[in-house]
Amino acid sequence: MAKYTFFHNPMSRAQIASWAFHEAGVEPEIIHVEWEDKPAALLEANPMGKLPTIVHHHSDHDHVVTETAAVCHYLAEMEAPDLLPRAEEKAAYFRWLFFAAGPMEAAVTNRAMGWDVPPERTMMMGYGDYDRTIDALDDWLTAHPHVCGERFTMADVYVGSQVGWGLRFETIPQRDSFAAYERRLAERPAYRASMDGAQD
Amino acid sequence: MAKYTFFHNPMSRAQIASWAFHEAGVEPEIIHVEWEDKPAALLEANPMGKLPTIVHHHSDHDHVVTETAAVCHYLAEMEAPDLLPRAEEKAAYFRWLFFAAGPMEAAVTNRAMGWDVPPERTMMMGYGDYDRTIDALDDWLTAHPHVCGERFTMADVYVGSQVGWGLRFETIPQRDSFAAYERRLAERPAYRASMDGAQD
Repeated sequence: MAKYTFFHNPMSRAQIASWAFHEAGVEPEIIHVEWEDKPAALLEANPMGKLPTIVHHHSDHDHVVTETAAVCHYLAEMEAPDLLPRAEEKAAYFRWLFFAAGPMEAAVTNRAMGWDVPPERTMMMGYGDYDRTIDALDDWLTAHPHVCGERFTMADVYVGSQVGWGLRFETIPQRDSFAAYERRLAERPAYRASMDGAQD
Repeated sequence: MAKYTFFHNPMSRAQIASWAFHEAGVEPEIIHVEWEDKPAALLEANPMGKLPTIVHHHSDHDHVVTETAAVCHYLAEMEAPDLLPRAEEKAAYFRWLFFAAGPMEAAVTNRAMGWDVPPERTMMMGYGDYDRTIDALDDWLTAHPHVCGERFTMADVYVGSQVGWGLRFETIPQRDSFAAYERRLAERPAYRASMDGAQD
């Protein structure tokens, strides 16, 4: 039995977890999920039925992890300590991982829905407004080649996917820093291997 | 010089970080921030000017942490290892920390803005829809007294604050699990101490 069960569909955020598995060097048992016919095992693990959902089979009990950024980080914690932040990298690692999972995800999807925050309510929204959110990440990636600086970490799988998907679907603006970051990440063998899998 | 600078206003999400500082047993230098007149030091650390922002003064360099959940987790990493998850608690810890920072925050604030996700677009939104998001956390907290089970961890500061604020501002529905969870957390000395500070 594989150590992990991975509920997957490459046309979803689960594709980010696929890259994370490749970076971690772990081969999970993949259960392909069709939206119209979700497997009972998925709904048992995660009643929301969202992807990615992973189950870590650990001696006599199972651990369920949901939320894409949590799945990436968990795989580094369990399988790839080299991709975890060193002490001096932790501030940037967690700051930008939560930034991408919270404000950026919200700003980008709300914009795509056509929902703009009225100026008098920007304080209520964690992200303030769309432009400031995009600018904040642009500034950081202009000054740093990766989330934690010179070194690639698991945070780049998640933040980099948000950037890559945003550019591809045109939900974030073209910026030099974003394009250069995406190019750097696209060279990684684990990224390529996960894309090959997606085309099967 | 204090080890941390904490840009604070108790009428903001920074109040969650205040609780986290008390749990971590660390006394930061507090810089009170008025919205109309943000200090230059805040804007230098975090051009978005959002709260909480903390600066960790570390030998000859500074680390900036933003995003409320990241601040909580970072303080546990640096100052309170007892509040970090043990190996068998990591799945739940990161799952629900990212759940509260991502889908739950988005679902609750979008609902408060009057933005409801049309059924045909629930897949695009990370949270699907508001009711399923609330139900997922309700189910978990009905079965577990804390995020990681019996034991309080730093994840409870963030998840518990989302629940507590949601109940107080009526942005989440009254559920028995939420009320019981909030009561348990409100008994913590560090929570009370942070509330005393907020009333100064």
